[in-house]
Amino acid sequence: MAIQTEPAEKIDFVHTGPGTLAGKYLRRFWQPVYLSSELTTGYAVPIRIMGEDFTLYRGESGAAYVVEFRCAHRGTQLSVGWVEQDCIRCFYHGWKYDGTGQCVEQPAESESFAQKIKIRSCPTKEYLGLIFAYFGEDAAPPFTRYAELEEAGEIDVGSYIRYCSYFNTLENGIDQTHVPFTHAKSSFTKFGLNWDIPQITAEETDYGIAMHGRRKDGKVRVNHYLMPNILYIKGSPESGQEGWREAFAWRVPVDDESHRSFNIALIHVSGDAAQRLRERQRQQQEIIVKLPSANEMAARVLAGKISVHDIDERSDLVNIQDHVAQEGQGAIPDRDAERLGRSDVAIILLRQIWRRELGALAQGGALKQWRRPEKLVATSGV
Amino acid sequence: MAIQTEPAEKIDFVHTGPGTLAGKYLRRFWQPVYLSSELTTGYAVPIRIMGEDFTLYRGESGAAYVVEFRCAHRGTQLSVGWVEQDCIRCFYHGWKYDGTGQCVEQPAESESFAQKIKIRSCPTKEYLGLIFAYFGEDAAPPFTRYAELEEAGEIDVGSYIRYCSYFNTLENGIDQTHVPFTHAKSSFTKFGLNWDIPQITAEETDYGIAMHGRRKDGKVRVNHYLMPNILYIKGSPESGQEGWREAFAWRVPVDDESHRSFNIALIHVSGDAAQRLRERQRQQQEIIVKLPSANEMAARVLAGKISVHDIDERSDLVNIQDHVAQEGQGAIPDRDAERLGRSDVAIILLRQIWRRELGALAQGGALKQWRRPEKLVATSGV
Amino acid sequence: MAIQTEPAEKIDFVHTGPGTLAGKYLRRFWQPVYLSSELTTGYAVPIRIMGEDFTLYRGESGAAYVVEFRCAHRGTQLSVGWVEQDCIRCFYHGWKYDGTGQCVEQPAESESFAQKIKIRSCPTKEYLGLIFAYFGEDAAPPFTRYAELEEAGEIDVGSYIRYCSYFNTLENGIDQTHVPFTHAKSSFTKFGLNWDIPQITAEETDYGIAMHGRRKDGKVRVNHYLMPNILYIKGSPESGQEGWREAFAWRVPVDDESHRSFNIALIHVSGDAAQRLRERQRQQQEIIVKLPSANEMAARVLAGKISVHDIDERSDLVNIQDHVAQEGQGAIPDRDAERLGRSDVAIILLRQIWRRELGALAQGGALKQWRRPEKLVATSGV
Repeated sequence: MAIQTEPAEKIDFVHTGPGTLAGKYLRRFWQPVYLSSELTTGYAVPIRIMGEDFTLYRGESGAAYVVEFRCAHRGTQLSVGWVEQDCIRCFYHGWKYDGTGQCVEQPAESESFAQKIKIRSCPTKEYLGLIFAYFGEDAAPPFTRYAELEEAGEIDVGSYIRYCSYFNTLENGIDQTHVPFTHAKSSFTKFGLNWDIPQITAEETDYGIAMHGRRKDGKVRVNHYLMPNILYIKGSPESGQEGWREAFAWRVPVDDESHRSFNIALIHVSGDAAQRLRERQRQQQEIIVKLPSANEMAARVLAGKISVHDIDERSDLVNIQDHVAQEGQGAIPDRDAERLGRSDVAIILLRQIWRRELGALAQGGALKQWRRPEKLVATSGV
Repeated sequence: MAIQTEPAEKIDFVHTGPGTLAGKYLRRFWQPVYLSSELTTGYAVPIRIMGEDFTLYRGESGAAYVVEFRCAHRGTQLSVGWVEQDCIRCFYHGWKYDGTGQCVEQPAESESFAQKIKIRSCPTKEYLGLIFAYFGEDAAPPFTRYAELEEAGEIDVGSYIRYCSYFNTLENGIDQTHVPFTHAKSSFTKFGLNWDIPQITAEETDYGIAMHGRRKDGKVRVNHYLMPNILYIKGSPESGQEGWREAFAWRVPVDDESHRSFNIALIHVSGDAAQRLRERQRQQQEIIVKLPSANEMAARVLAGKISVHDIDERSDLVNIQDHVAQEGQGAIPDRDAERLGRSDVAIILLRQIWRRELGALAQGGALKQWRRPEKLVATSGV
Repeated sequence: MAIQTEPAEKIDFVHTGPGTLAGKYLRRFWQPVYLSSELTTGYAVPIRIMGEDFTLYRGESGAAYVVEFRCAHRGTQLSVGWVEQDCIRCFYHGWKYDGTGQCVEQPAESESFAQKIKIRSCPTKEYLGLIFAYFGEDAAPPFTRYAELEEAGEIDVGSYIRYCSYFNTLENGIDQTHVPFTHAKSSFTKFGLNWDIPQITAEETDYGIAMHGRRKDGKVRVNHYLMPNILYIKGSPESGQEGWREAFAWRVPVDDESHRSFNIALIHVSGDAAQRLRERQRQQQEIIVKLPSANEMAARVLAGKISVHDIDERSDLVNIQDHVAQEGQGAIPDRDAERLGRSDVAIILLRQIWRRELGALAQGGALKQWRRPEKLVATSGV
C-alpha cells in the first residue's frame, strides 16, 4: 500500500551552504575534503565544501592546513601562492599566513600590521589516506576512528564527484531495493526474470540506521548508515577473486547540486593475494584511464546519446549506473511529487531522523549524540 | 513607404511553455517529435518539446510511445530504463508502465499499489518517417495526411536544430524577399547586381497563407504556409539534375530559444533517376560528416571568427545561411525595434493571424478551423 | 599601520554598461577597439565594448567604421553582411548603410523609405596599429597622440583578454609592489630572500598619476597612469638583448567581468638590432602558438589543476602571472573586505580620483580636464 509522506514538515536537508540549517548540522562533524595522496608537500589547492571555498595546502612538515580562500589584503586566491615551511604566502603581494590563519608577514609594509590580520582556519586530520577538516563554529569534536578499517589488510582510498545533491546519494545508500535493478548483472534479461529483491527493515540506532535486507534464500544482509553522511557496507570480491572489503563512504556536498564521495575500503587480503589484488587493480586502471570518465558516460546517457544498457563491461560500471539513477532524479529532486511505498521504509526513517535533528537544531533543543560501538559488522548475503 | 506595426496588441506568440497562450495553441495540433529511423525498437530517449521533457520509446511491437519524463516513484528519468514488450521499466526500482502511462508493476512492493499510479502519456502517430505526438488537453484531433507527399517518388526525411525561437523560422518561411540575399549564389558579386527580388502578395486561406512572389520575368512562385507551423514549398533540383520536390517543414519549439525543424520531401524521381539521386546523396553525406556541423559553422560566423561569405560550397550551405540570418536576429528578437516595409506584408499577415487566434483562445472565443484542400500546389518560378 | 578605506563613498567605478556612471565617464574618451591588422578590407566583425555590441568593418577605401550591431529592419546582426565600397549591406534583406549609419538602399521596397532610417554610428581613428572609436554622447574630443610612440624605432601592437573587471588591471598597473612577488624570477627561492620591494609614492598630475618606486639601491622608477584607463611604463629588454621600450596599455571593458588590453610599444632599435628583434619575436611566436594559450593556463591554475610555479618559462609568462593574480581576486572583487596598507597609497589615490570625477559627473559638476605634456618620461631602475 502507498505510504503518504507528510508534507507538513518542510525542513530542508538539501541546502548546505553557510547559514543553512543542514549546513550548520553537517559542519558539526569532521568531513573529508581531499585524498592525502593528491596533496603534495609544498603545494596548495582550492577546494569547495558545502558551498564555501577554502585553501588547502601541505606544509614542508607534511601537515595539511585549511585556511580561508582569499588573502585579506586585496582578495587574491591564496591557493596560487607559495607554501613556505608550514605557511602560505600570497601570490600578489606576498602576505604570509601561518596554519592558524595568522598573518605573519607583510613584506611591502614598512610598518607591518600583520598582527591585526587573521583569516579563518579550520583544523585538519589525516586518517587512512583522507584529509579531514572541521568547519563548525564550536570547538572541534573528538575525531572518530574506524576500527573496521584498522584491521589487517589492504587499504583502498578514492573519491569521485556526482552531479546531484548529496542527499540523493544518502538515500541511495539506505535503499537496498534498487540494487537488483540499477546494478543488474550484464547478463540480466528484460523478460520476467525473478529479481532477488530484498525485504527491507531498518531501525534507528545509537549511530544512525541499521538496514536489514532479507533475500529469497533467507540470508540477511546488514549494512549501516552512520549519521550524518556515512555509509558502511560489506563489499564482495569480484567473482572468484579474494578480498571481502569493509567499505566506508562519506558524501560531502561541494554545493547544493553536486557532491564528492570519499571512500575508504579495508580489503581482507595479505601476502600473495594482496599482490594479485594490486596487480588486478593496476591493470584495470590502465584500461579505465583510456576510456571516457564515468561522469562523462553518465552525462551521455542522461542526454539520450547512448543507452546505459549498451555500455561495455568496465570496472566502474556500478558507479556509472549510480550516477545515472541519482543524477537522473534531478540535481535537487522534487520530493513533493514522490509516491513512496513500503519498500521505502529506510528512506522514510532517514528523513525522519534528519528532520528531527534539524528541527531541534533550529529551536536550540537537544541534539542526539551519535555514538558508535567499537566495531560494526556489515554482512553480505551473497 | 514604412508600415507602422501596431504595438497595442502585445499578444505573445514567442513563448510556448506549459501555461502559455501560444503553447496552448500549438498543443492543439499534432507535432512531429523525432525521426522514425532514429528510434530503435527496444530503446528509449529523452525529448524536450515546447519547454517540457518527455520519455519517447519504441516497444517491441514497433509502436512508439510518449510518456512522462520521470518515474512517479522517486523521479528518476524514465528514458534510462528498459523497454519490455511495449512497456517501460524504470532503471532505479523497476516500476513498470504501459504505453498509456499506467503503472503495471512495482516489483519491490509486497502489496503493489500500481493501480493507483498513472503518469501522463501522449498519443503518437508515425507517418512517412516522422513520429508525431499530441500534447493538448482535449481529445486528439484527426491526424492530417499530406497527399502531396504520398505520390510516387522518393521520400527524404530529416531534422535539424536552430538556436532561436521557432517564430523566427516561421517568418523566414513566409518571407520570400530574403532569398536573393541570404541565399545568393556563390558567384554573387557585391557590386550592383540586379537581384531578382520578388514582388510579394499574400492572402489568408482556409489552411493558412498562400504566398505569391512575382519575379522580373513575370513568373509567379506560389508557396503555402499551413497553420500553425508548417511550410510547404517546391524545391528545385540541383542544377542539371532531376528531381523537383514537394518540401514540407514543421517548426517545433524545443524551448523558447531553440526549435527543431522536421522535414519531409517527396522527390519526383523513380527508377534509374532515383538511384542516381540516392547515390548523389550518399556521396554528399560522406563529405558532410567530416566537416564541422552546420550549427557549428553558424556559431563561428555569428561569433565573428569566420565570414559566412568565405564558407566553401557544401550541400548544407543554404541551411547555414538561414541559421546565420535567423539566429543573427537574436534568439528572441526585439520586435518593438523593427522597421517593417511593404515587402513585409506576408509577415505582417502572419502575425495578424496569430494574434487573432491567440486572442480568441485567451477569451474563449471561436478559433478558426483550419481546413486544407485535397492537394495544394506549390510552384517555383525558376 | 593599517589604512582605513572610507566605505562612505560607494561610487561604483566597476560597472561600465550603458547608463552607468563609470560607463558614461569612459565613453567621454576615445577607446581602442581592435587591432588594425586583424580587420581586413571588405570584412566586418562583431565587437563588444563596455557591455554594448557593435559592428566594425573596413571599407574598400581602407577606412574603418563602427555602426550599430543590428539592422534596423528586423534585427539581424550586421557583421554577417557584405561590405560594399564603404557601406555595409545586411545579410538578411540587403538593406545597405553608409559609414554614418544612414540607410541608403532597401532593395525589396518598391518605395524606399531608406532616408527615414538611420542607425547609430561612432567615429573611428586608426593610430599606430589600433582602431579607436568614440562612444560618447557629445561631439568627439580631439584625438590624443603619443609623442613617446612616434619616435624612431620598431612598433609592437597587441591585445589580450582578461576575465575580470578592467579596474583590477588599472589597480595592478598603479601597484608596483606586486612585481617582486607575482613576477618573481624563475630562480626566485622561497626562503628568506630579500625582495627588492620598492617604496612607493604617487601624486596626482595634470594627466593622471605619476608613480615613483624607490628601490634598495636608491634608483627610482617612474611610471605614469593617464586617466582614464591608460598605463605607460618603461619596459626593459630581455636580459642581454637590445631594446628598451615605451609601453602603453589601454584597458577597455568588454563587459563588467572581462576586459581587453590594447598595447602599443615603441622599441628603441633600428637596423640590424631591429632585424634581430623581429627574428627573436618570430621564433617566440612559433613556440607560443603550439602551447595552450595564456588564458587557458591561467584558468587551469585558478581551478587548481596546475601550479603557476610549475609553468615552464615561456615568453608570455608575465601575462599568465598577471591573469592569475587579477582574475584570482574575483571578476569583481569585494572591496569592502579589503585591508589596505601604506604600500597601497597609489591605489587609494587612484580610487579617490575616480570617485571624485564620477561624483562630479553624477552631480553635473566640473570634471577635471586631463592634460598631458608633450612627452612623458618613464624610467626603469633596473
